Amino acid sequence: MSVILARALTAAAFAPFGEVLETAGPPDKIINRGLCGRWHDRAGLEFGSTGRAGISVFRATPRALPMTLDMVERHPEGSQAFLPMSEHPFLVVVAPDADGVPGTPLAFLTDGAQGVNYARGTWHGVLTPLNGPGLFAVVDRIGEGANLEEHWFDTPHTVRLP
Amino acid sequence: MSVILARALTAAAFAPFGEVLETAGPPDKIINRGLCGRWHDRAGLEFGSTGRAGISVFRATPRALPMTLDMVERHPEGSQAFLPMSEHPFLVVVAPDADGVPGTPLAFLTDGAQGVNYARGTWHGVLTPLNGPGLFAVVDRIGEGANLEEHWFDTPHTVRLP
Repeated sequence: MSVILARALTAAAFAPFGEVLETAGPPDKIINRGLCGRWHDRAGLEFGSTGRAGISVFRATPRALPMTLDMVERHPEGSQAFLPMSEHPFLVVVAPDADGVPGTPLAFLTDGAQGVNYARGTWHGVLTPLNGPGLFAVVDRIGEGANLEEHWFDTPHTVRLP
Repeated sequence: MSVILARALTAAAFAPFGEVLETAGPPDKIINRGLCGRWHDRAGLEFGSTGRAGISVFRATPRALPMTLDMVERHPEGSQAFLPMSEHPFLVVVAPDADGVPGTPLAFLTDGAQGVNYARGTWHGVLTPLNGPGLFAVVDRIGEGANLEEHWFDTPHTVRLP
Protein backbone atom coordinates (compact mmCIF):
# COMPACT_ATOMS: atom_id res chain seq x y z
CA MET A 1 0.00 0.00 0.00
CA SER A 2 1.63 3.25 -1.14
CA VAL A 3 1.47 6.40 0.93
CA ILE A 4 0.28 9.68 -0.58
CA LEU A 5 1.08 12.83 1.38
CA ALA A 6 -1.56 15.57 1.39
CA ARG A 7 0.14 18.86 0.54
CA ALA A 8 -1.19 22.40 0.73
CA LEU A 9 -3.39 23.14 -2.27
CA THR A 10 -2.00 25.74 -4.65
CA ALA A 11 -3.25 26.93 -8.01
CA ALA A 12 0.07 26.07 -9.64
CA ALA A 13 0.16 22.50 -8.39
CA PHE A 14 -3.50 21.98 -9.26
CA ALA A 15 -3.35 23.56 -12.72
CA PRO A 16 -3.11 20.29 -14.68
CA PHE A 17 -6.38 19.18 -13.09
CA GLY A 18 -8.53 22.32 -13.05
CA GLU A 19 -8.80 25.52 -11.04
CA VAL A 20 -8.55 26.53 -7.40
CA LEU A 21 -11.41 28.91 -6.61
CA GLU A 22 -10.07 31.41 -4.12
CA THR A 23 -9.36 35.09 -3.56
CA ALA A 24 -5.64 34.91 -4.29
CA GLY A 25 -4.11 38.16 -5.54
CA PRO A 26 -6.06 41.34 -6.20
CA PRO A 27 -9.69 41.10 -7.27
CA ASP A 28 -10.51 41.46 -10.95
CA LYS A 29 -13.19 44.02 -10.12
CA ILE A 30 -14.30 46.05 -7.14
CA ILE A 31 -18.09 46.26 -7.03
CA ASN A 32 -20.86 47.48 -4.74
CA ARG A 33 -19.24 50.89 -4.20
CA GLY A 34 -16.04 49.47 -2.85
CA LEU A 35 -17.61 46.95 -0.50
CA CYS A 36 -16.94 43.80 -2.52
CA GLY A 37 -14.13 42.28 -4.54
CA ARG A 38 -14.95 40.00 -7.46
CA TRP A 39 -12.46 37.34 -8.56
CA HIS A 40 -14.14 36.91 -11.90
CA ASP A 41 -14.97 33.79 -13.88
CA ARG A 42 -12.33 31.55 -12.35
CA ALA A 43 -13.53 28.08 -13.40
CA GLY A 44 -13.18 26.29 -16.71
CA LEU A 45 -16.72 25.01 -16.89
CA GLU A 46 -17.77 22.41 -19.45
CA PHE A 47 -21.11 20.68 -19.71
CA GLY A 48 -20.85 19.03 -23.12
CA SER A 49 -23.17 19.41 -26.08
CA THR A 50 -26.07 17.65 -24.38
CA GLY A 51 -25.75 18.99 -20.85
CA ARG A 52 -26.26 22.20 -18.91
CA ALA A 53 -24.98 23.74 -15.70
CA GLY A 54 -26.66 22.87 -12.43
CA ILE A 55 -26.16 23.62 -8.76
CA SER A 56 -26.64 20.81 -6.29
CA VAL A 57 -25.95 20.62 -2.57
CA PHE A 58 -23.90 17.75 -1.18
CA ARG A 59 -23.65 16.73 2.45
CA ALA A 60 -20.87 14.20 2.99
CA THR A 61 -19.78 12.28 6.05
CA PRO A 62 -16.45 13.60 7.33
CA ARG A 63 -13.43 11.33 7.03
CA ALA A 64 -10.23 11.27 9.05
CA LEU A 65 -6.60 11.06 8.00
CA PRO A 66 -4.82 8.76 7.47
CA MET A 67 -7.42 7.41 5.05
CA THR A 68 -7.55 4.56 2.61
CA LEU A 69 -8.02 5.66 -0.99
CA ASP A 70 -9.45 2.76 -2.93
CA MET A 71 -10.98 4.50 -5.92
CA VAL A 72 -11.12 7.62 -8.03
CA GLU A 73 -13.70 8.65 -10.59
CA ARG A 74 -14.09 11.00 -13.54
CA HIS A 75 -16.85 12.69 -15.48
CA PRO A 76 -16.16 12.43 -19.20
CA GLU A 77 -18.92 14.86 -20.19
CA GLY A 78 -18.31 17.77 -17.86
CA SER A 79 -16.44 19.68 -15.20
CA GLN A 80 -17.33 19.50 -11.52
CA ALA A 81 -16.79 22.20 -8.89
CA PHE A 82 -16.78 21.56 -5.13
CA LEU A 83 -17.55 24.77 -3.24
CA PRO A 84 -17.31 24.39 0.53
CA MET A 85 -20.12 25.96 2.58
CA SER A 86 -17.89 26.07 5.66
CA GLU A 87 -14.41 27.32 6.48
CA HIS A 88 -12.96 23.86 7.10
CA PRO A 89 -10.18 22.42 4.98
CA PHE A 90 -11.13 19.39 2.90
CA LEU A 91 -9.16 16.76 1.06
CA VAL A 92 -8.69 16.98 -2.70
CA VAL A 93 -7.39 13.93 -4.55
CA VAL A 94 -6.60 13.94 -8.25
CA ALA A 95 -4.68 11.70 -10.62
CA PRO A 96 -3.23 12.19 -14.08
CA ASP A 97 -4.61 9.99 -16.80
CA ALA A 98 -2.35 7.23 -18.05
CA ASP A 99 -3.85 5.63 -21.14
CA GLY A 100 -7.38 5.58 -19.78
CA VAL A 101 -6.60 4.68 -16.19
CA PRO A 102 -5.44 6.89 -13.34
CA GLY A 103 -1.73 7.29 -12.71
CA THR A 104 -0.34 7.87 -9.22
CA PRO A 105 -2.75 10.09 -7.27
CA LEU A 106 -1.87 13.41 -5.69
CA ALA A 107 -3.51 14.70 -2.53
CA PHE A 108 -4.04 18.29 -1.43
CA LEU A 109 -5.49 19.92 1.63
CA THR A 110 -7.42 23.16 1.12
CA ASP A 111 -6.84 26.12 3.42
CA GLY A 112 -10.49 26.54 4.41
CA ALA A 113 -11.15 29.32 1.90
CA GLN A 114 -10.67 27.42 -1.35
CA GLY A 115 -12.98 25.56 -3.68
CA VAL A 116 -11.90 23.49 -6.65
CA ASN A 117 -13.15 22.88 -10.16
CA TYR A 118 -12.15 19.58 -11.71
CA ALA A 119 -11.66 19.90 -15.44
CA ARG A 120 -13.80 17.63 -17.62
CA GLY A 121 -12.50 14.08 -17.56
CA THR A 122 -10.12 14.57 -14.63
CA TRP A 123 -9.63 11.62 -12.30
CA HIS A 124 -10.50 12.72 -8.76
CA GLY A 125 -11.49 11.40 -5.39
CA VAL A 126 -15.02 11.67 -4.08
CA LEU A 127 -15.99 14.64 -1.94
CA THR A 128 -13.96 14.26 1.25
CA PRO A 129 -14.61 16.68 4.08
CA LEU A 130 -12.54 16.26 7.21
CA ASN A 131 -14.99 18.13 9.48
CA GLY A 132 -18.71 18.53 9.82
CA PRO A 133 -21.11 19.64 8.49
CA GLY A 134 -19.56 18.42 5.23
CA LEU A 135 -21.77 20.79 3.26
CA PHE A 136 -20.81 21.81 -0.28
CA ALA A 137 -22.41 23.47 -3.26
CA VAL A 138 -21.55 21.52 -6.40
CA VAL A 139 -21.66 22.92 -9.92
CA ASP A 140 -21.68 20.16 -12.49
CA ARG A 141 -23.32 18.85 -15.62
CA ILE A 142 -27.01 18.07 -15.63
CA GLY A 143 -28.05 15.89 -18.53
CA GLU A 144 -28.76 12.47 -19.89
CA GLY A 145 -26.12 9.88 -20.68
CA ALA A 146 -23.32 8.22 -18.78
CA ASN A 147 -21.08 10.77 -17.08
CA LEU A 148 -19.38 8.70 -14.39
CA GLU A 149 -16.42 6.39 -14.72
CA GLU A 150 -14.98 4.75 -11.62
CA HIS A 151 -11.56 3.20 -11.20
CA TRP A 152 -10.84 0.92 -8.27
CA PHE A 153 -7.19 0.47 -7.40
CA ASP A 154 -5.84 -3.07 -7.29
CA THR A 155 -3.81 -1.93 -4.32
CA PRO A 156 -5.39 0.87 -2.30
CA HIS A 157 -3.33 3.92 -1.31
CA THR A 158 -3.06 5.55 2.08
CA VAL A 159 -3.47 9.32 2.25
CA ARG A 160 -1.96 11.05 5.24
CA LEU A 161 -0.54 14.38 6.33
CA PRO A 162 3.24 14.84 5.97
CA MET B 1 -37.81 55.77 6.35
CA SER B 2 -39.71 52.47 6.41
CA VAL B 3 -38.54 49.55 8.48
CA ILE B 4 -38.11 46.10 6.93
CA LEU B 5 -37.83 43.19 9.34
CA ALA B 6 -35.42 40.39 8.41
CA ARG B 7 -37.25 37.07 8.77
CA ALA B 8 -35.88 33.53 8.67
CA LEU B 9 -35.29 32.44 5.08
CA THR B 10 -37.57 29.65 3.90
CA ALA B 11 -37.97 28.10 0.47
CA ALA B 12 -41.69 28.88 0.49
CA ALA B 13 -41.29 32.57 1.28
CA PHE B 14 -38.45 32.90 -1.24
CA ALA B 15 -40.17 30.99 -4.05
CA PRO B 16 -41.35 34.05 -6.00
CA PHE B 17 -37.74 35.23 -6.22
CA GLY B 18 -35.74 32.06 -6.85
CA GLU B 19 -34.50 29.07 -4.91
CA VAL B 20 -33.01 28.43 -1.49
CA LEU B 21 -30.04 26.07 -1.87
CA GLU B 22 -30.01 23.87 1.19
CA THR B 23 -30.30 20.27 2.39
CA ALA B 24 -33.95 20.45 3.44
CA GLY B 25 -35.79 17.15 3.35
CA PRO B 26 -34.30 13.86 2.22
CA PRO B 27 -31.57 13.90 -0.43
CA ASP B 28 -32.54 13.16 -4.02
CA LYS B 29 -29.72 10.64 -4.26
CA ILE B 30 -27.31 8.88 -1.95
CA ILE B 31 -23.89 8.60 -3.58
CA ASN B 32 -20.35 7.53 -2.73
CA ARG B 33 -21.46 4.25 -1.18
CA GLY B 34 -23.71 5.87 1.36
CA LEU B 35 -21.29 8.57 2.45
CA CYS B 36 -22.89 11.53 0.67
CA GLY B 37 -26.35 12.91 0.04
CA ARG B 38 -27.04 14.85 -3.14
CA TRP B 39 -29.80 17.45 -3.24
CA HIS B 40 -29.88 17.51 -6.99
CA ASP B 41 -30.13 20.40 -9.43
CA ARG B 42 -31.80 22.85 -7.09
CA ALA B 43 -31.33 26.16 -8.91
CA GLY B 44 -33.22 27.62 -11.83
CA LEU B 45 -30.19 28.79 -13.77
CA GLU B 46 -30.51 31.08 -16.78
CA PHE B 47 -27.72 32.70 -18.73
CA GLY B 48 -29.57 34.01 -21.77
CA SER B 49 -28.89 33.26 -25.41
CA THR B 50 -25.57 35.12 -25.44
CA GLY B 51 -24.17 34.15 -22.05
CA ARG B 52 -22.77 31.14 -20.25
CA ALA B 53 -22.35 29.97 -16.67
CA GLY B 54 -19.37 31.12 -14.66
CA ILE B 55 -18.10 30.75 -11.12
CA SER B 56 -16.60 33.79 -9.45
CA VAL B 57 -15.50 34.35 -5.87
CA PHE B 58 -16.74 37.40 -3.98
CA ARG B 59 -15.32 38.79 -0.77
CA ALA B 60 -17.60 41.42 0.74
CA THR B 61 -17.19 43.67 3.74
CA PRO B 62 -19.53 42.55 6.54
CA ARG B 63 -22.40 44.86 7.45
CA ALA B 64 -24.30 45.20 10.71
CA LEU B 65 -28.02 45.40 11.44
CA PRO B 66 -29.89 47.68 11.57
CA MET B 67 -28.74 48.72 8.10
CA THR B 68 -29.81 51.32 5.60
CA LEU B 69 -31.04 49.85 2.31
CA ASP B 70 -30.75 52.50 -0.35
CA MET B 71 -30.71 50.43 -3.52
CA VAL B 72 -31.50 47.12 -5.13
CA GLU B 73 -30.37 45.76 -8.47
CA ARG B 74 -31.33 43.13 -11.01
CA HIS B 75 -29.73 41.19 -13.82
CA PRO B 76 -32.08 41.08 -16.82
CA GLU B 77 -30.03 38.50 -18.71
CA GLY B 78 -29.41 35.86 -16.08
CA SER B 79 -29.80 34.26 -12.69
CA GLN B 80 -27.30 34.79 -9.87
CA ALA B 81 -26.49 32.39 -7.04
CA PHE B 82 -24.79 33.39 -3.80
CA LEU B 83 -23.15 30.37 -2.17
CA PRO B 84 -21.62 31.14 1.23
CA MET B 85 -18.14 29.70 1.89
CA SER B 86 -18.71 29.96 5.66
CA GLU B 87 -21.37 28.87 8.12
CA HIS B 88 -22.46 32.41 8.99
CA PRO B 89 -25.96 33.70 8.25
CA PHE B 90 -26.14 36.48 5.67
CA LEU B 91 -28.80 38.97 4.71
CA VAL B 92 -30.95 38.39 1.63
CA VAL B 93 -33.04 41.28 0.31
CA VAL B 94 -35.45 40.93 -2.59
CA ALA B 95 -38.30 42.96 -4.01
CA PRO B 96 -41.18 42.17 -6.33
CA ASP B 97 -41.27 44.05 -9.60
CA ALA B 98 -43.92 46.73 -9.90
CA ASP B 99 -44.06 47.96 -13.49
CA GLY B 100 -40.31 48.09 -13.93
CA VAL B 101 -39.36 49.34 -10.51
CA PRO B 102 -39.01 47.45 -7.23
CA GLY B 103 -42.00 47.22 -4.91
CA THR B 104 -41.59 47.01 -1.16
CA PRO B 105 -38.49 44.94 -0.34
CA LEU B 106 -38.47 41.82 1.80
CA ALA B 107 -35.53 40.82 3.95
CA PHE B 108 -34.45 37.33 5.03
CA LEU B 109 -31.71 35.98 7.22
CA THR B 110 -30.16 32.65 6.21
CA ASP B 111 -29.54 29.95 8.79
CA GLY B 112 -25.83 29.55 8.03
CA ALA B 113 -26.34 26.52 5.80
CA GLN B 114 -28.31 28.10 2.95
CA GLY B 115 -27.38 29.67 -0.34
CA VAL B 116 -29.77 31.45 -2.68
CA ASN B 117 -30.30 31.67 -6.40
CA TYR B 118 -31.99 34.82 -7.65
CA ALA B 119 -34.14 34.15 -10.67
CA ARG B 120 -33.30 36.13 -13.80
CA GLY B 121 -34.53 39.70 -13.51
CA THR B 122 -35.27 39.57 -9.77
CA TRP B 123 -34.69 42.76 -7.79
CA HIS B 124 -32.26 42.00 -4.97
CA GLY B 125 -29.84 43.61 -2.58
CA VAL B 126 -26.10 43.39 -3.05
CA LEU B 127 -24.19 40.62 -1.31
CA THR B 128 -24.52 41.37 2.40
CA PRO B 129 -22.56 39.21 4.84
CA LEU B 130 -22.98 40.01 8.51
CA ASN B 131 -19.72 38.31 9.56
CA GLY B 132 -16.24 37.84 8.20
CA PRO B 133 -14.71 36.56 6.02
CA GLY B 134 -17.61 37.48 3.74
CA LEU B 135 -16.51 34.87 1.22
CA PHE B 136 -18.97 33.53 -1.37
CA ALA B 137 -18.89 31.54 -4.56
CA VAL B 138 -21.15 33.19 -7.12
CA VAL B 139 -22.64 31.45 -10.13
CA ASP B 140 -23.89 33.93 -12.68
CA ARG B 141 -23.90 34.87 -16.32
CA ILE B 142 -20.66 35.56 -18.11
CA GLY B 143 -21.14 37.40 -21.38
CA GLU B 144 -21.24 40.64 -23.25
CA GLY B 145 -24.01 43.22 -22.99
CA ALA B 146 -25.64 45.13 -20.18
CA ASN B 147 -26.78 42.84 -17.39
CA LEU B 148 -27.09 45.20 -14.43
CA GLU B 149 -29.92 47.55 -13.59
CA GLU B 150 -29.81 49.52 -10.36
CA HIS B 151 -32.68 51.20 -8.55
CA TRP B 152 -32.03 53.78 -5.87
CA PHE B 153 -34.86 54.40 -3.45
CA ASP B 154 -36.09 57.97 -3.08
CA THR B 155 -36.49 57.18 0.60
CA PRO B 156 -34.09 54.54 1.92
CA HIS B 157 -35.39 51.66 4.03
CA THR B 158 -34.00 50.40 7.31
CA VAL B 159 -33.47 46.64 7.65
CA ARG B 160 -33.40 45.27 11.16
CA LEU B 161 -34.07 42.10 13.11
CA PRO B 162 -37.58 41.67 14.57
